[in-house]
Amino acid sequence: MPNITVALDAMGGDFGPRVIVPAAVQALSHFPELKVILVGDRNAITAQLASLGYPANSRLDIQHSDRVISNSEKPSLALRNSEGTSMSQAIDAVAKGEADACVSGGNTGALMALSRFKLKLLPGIERPALVSALPTASGSQVWMLDLGANVSCDADSLFQFAIMGSALAEQYLPHSPRVAILNIGAEEIKGNDLVKRCAEMLSQTSSINYIGYIEGNQLLSDAADVVVCDGFVGNVCLKACEGTAQIFINKLRSSLTASSIKGWIARILFSRLFNDLKMLNPDQYNGASLLGLRGIVIKSHGSADVDALVNAIGEAIHEVKRQVPSRISDRLEAVLLERHY
Amino acid sequence: MPNITVALDAMGGDFGPRVIVPAAVQALSHFPELKVILVGDRNAITAQLASLGYPANSRLDIQHSDRVISNSEKPSLALRNSEGTSMSQAIDAVAKGEADACVSGGNTGALMALSRFKLKLLPGIERPALVSALPTASGSQVWMLDLGANVSCDADSLFQFAIMGSALAEQYLPHSPRVAILNIGAEEIKGNDLVKRCAEMLSQTSSINYIGYIEGNQLLSDAADVVVCDGFVGNVCLKACEGTAQIFINKLRSSLTASSIKGWIARILFSRLFNDLKMLNPDQYNGASLLGLRGIVIKSHGSADVDALVNAIGEAIHEVKRQVPSRISDRLEAVLLERHY
Repeated sequence: MPNITVALDAMGGDFGPRVIVPAAVQALSHFPELKVILVGDRNAITAQLASLGYPANSRLDIQHSDRVISNSEKPSLALRNSEGTSMSQAIDAVAKGEADACVSGGNTGALMALSRFKLKLLPGIERPALVSALPTASGSQVWMLDLGANVSCDADSLFQFAIMGSALAEQYLPHSPRVAILNIGAEEIKGNDLVKRCAEMLSQTSSINYIGYIEGNQLLSDAADVVVCDGFVGNVCLKACEGTAQIFINKLRSSLTASSIKGWIARILFSRLFNDLKMLNPDQYNGASLLGLRGIVIKSHGSADVDALVNAIGEAIHEVKRQVPSRISDRLEAVLLERHY
Repeated sequence: MPNITVALDAMGGDFGPRVIVPAAVQALSHFPELKVILVGDRNAITAQLASLGYPANSRLDIQHSDRVISNSEKPSLALRNSEGTSMSQAIDAVAKGEADACVSGGNTGALMALSRFKLKLLPGIERPALVSALPTASGSQVWMLDLGANVSCDADSLFQFAIMGSALAEQYLPHSPRVAILNIGAEEIKGNDLVKRCAEMLSQTSSINYIGYIEGNQLLSDAADVVVCDGFVGNVCLKACEGTAQIFINKLRSSLTASSIKGWIARILFSRLFNDLKMLNPDQYNGASLLGLRGIVIKSHGSADVDALVNAIGEAIHEVKRQVPSRISDRLEAVLLERHY
């Protein structure tokens, strides 16, 4: 019985309906609990559905919109000119209660500004944050935030990121999430004012399992479950990990695909290792959540393919089931009570 | 004929004379032009030399110091209490003209503060920057700065980093170095005020080959020759690359060292590939330069082994030969003339 509705911005991302419509169809077959609202150009969506031989039905609705927010649009401008865009209508569907979550691969800044304006922030949160679970060396995960929603933030925001990240991670972990701040050294004297002030606040908060600073080389090494940083650092750092992983994967791939005997042996012996290594690239995952809102908004990579988009839709479903916004709200209330009394 | 003298802080780094003395001896045999001053505890240094069967000679001098700056000491405190420490005396040797360069694996903040105080900044430079050449996917190099000397900086500093990085890189490249700013997106609207203001300044400077923003995933992909960022971002980002590379290398190593037939075949066929991949880890390199000073100071990894320290000494020799400080000074003067007239 389908009982979770996800609004999909069918025009967002680099490929629009060409990728988003097939992803919606695949997600519907993968998640029996899912209903989808495809928001975007009705003709383009219908044409895609027809080419897949998949008619609109009780689990797939189309909501027409004839405008798209471009990737180069400033968030402030996007906010003013958003009326009638696919992204705006997808968020509206959540705001009106027609959908439980929305997924968009469009302009991140615009998605944040619109979500904040239409869904409102949870009480006690000043800025939403973009979070994603990254694969670690041991096959586990680390939740990193902010990944680029806030190019600059203050210690209060960083502190709130820690609480939100912890509340999210504890939905997935059997233990209290170990929360760390990303810094340029492990010693107390290291870092800028931002991390030092946030460290002081977290040290005084007993309901958060704060373990101190970690350095960039520990990010994917299971040193922490939740890693907080400002959005500039988080975005650059995550992409640096992805870029490095991609270089290794490309070098290995060229060995594995060589048309020599060596390449042939390599394919027999190491295809599985290669596939395991591919999964270590954070880029393999898709679906970063905008946390801190009174609703669920998932940001997909602009360049996501069908499988990656299905992952992002899966993330939306998980968060609906786990009622992530209200978990964060509860956790935040507890921390604020602890800090003020 | 030895004509380049390098002062080595024999007590800096995690292992002190145990690693630094053998590295000095190896460097002396590797670089015939080198003379070394080992600064540190004379007894410990002499004992190490004795165990290597290497007597002090005309190419190896010992300068006794009985104090060491600890890794946890704040730079401001280190500055006040630096008298008689090995790091301070090694820098003094450069300031007095007894050495052409100094190399230390000690406390980075203290090294920067002391170098700045004793050697003075080049005219027009407000803050020194830590730079290193990182390996790229194609086997080339990218110079990244700042790597942690400045946890926060303004646009003027970032602009000066670009000039210094460009002046350094052009000593090694056959073309005008492509200079980029590390940012969270390639579009002009992306980023914080710091990068936007610096981008504006670089766009107006015709003597710098400024190519725009690059993202974290392009850092090691030959998209630019010089990449500038503040020291917090640079440090975290570089270490994130190192950590990711290390995870891949560890996974491959365990396949290659397995005591199975598969491991045996892998060792025969893929040892060379593995060694090539190891060289993609930025951590393989050693010897970051503090640029912007009226003297040459090389920061070695605290955890550097003998080979890595020899690399750092080699970097010092290169910079002496290329007269890097005066190249930077010339370049800076040209840019300042262009900006003011």
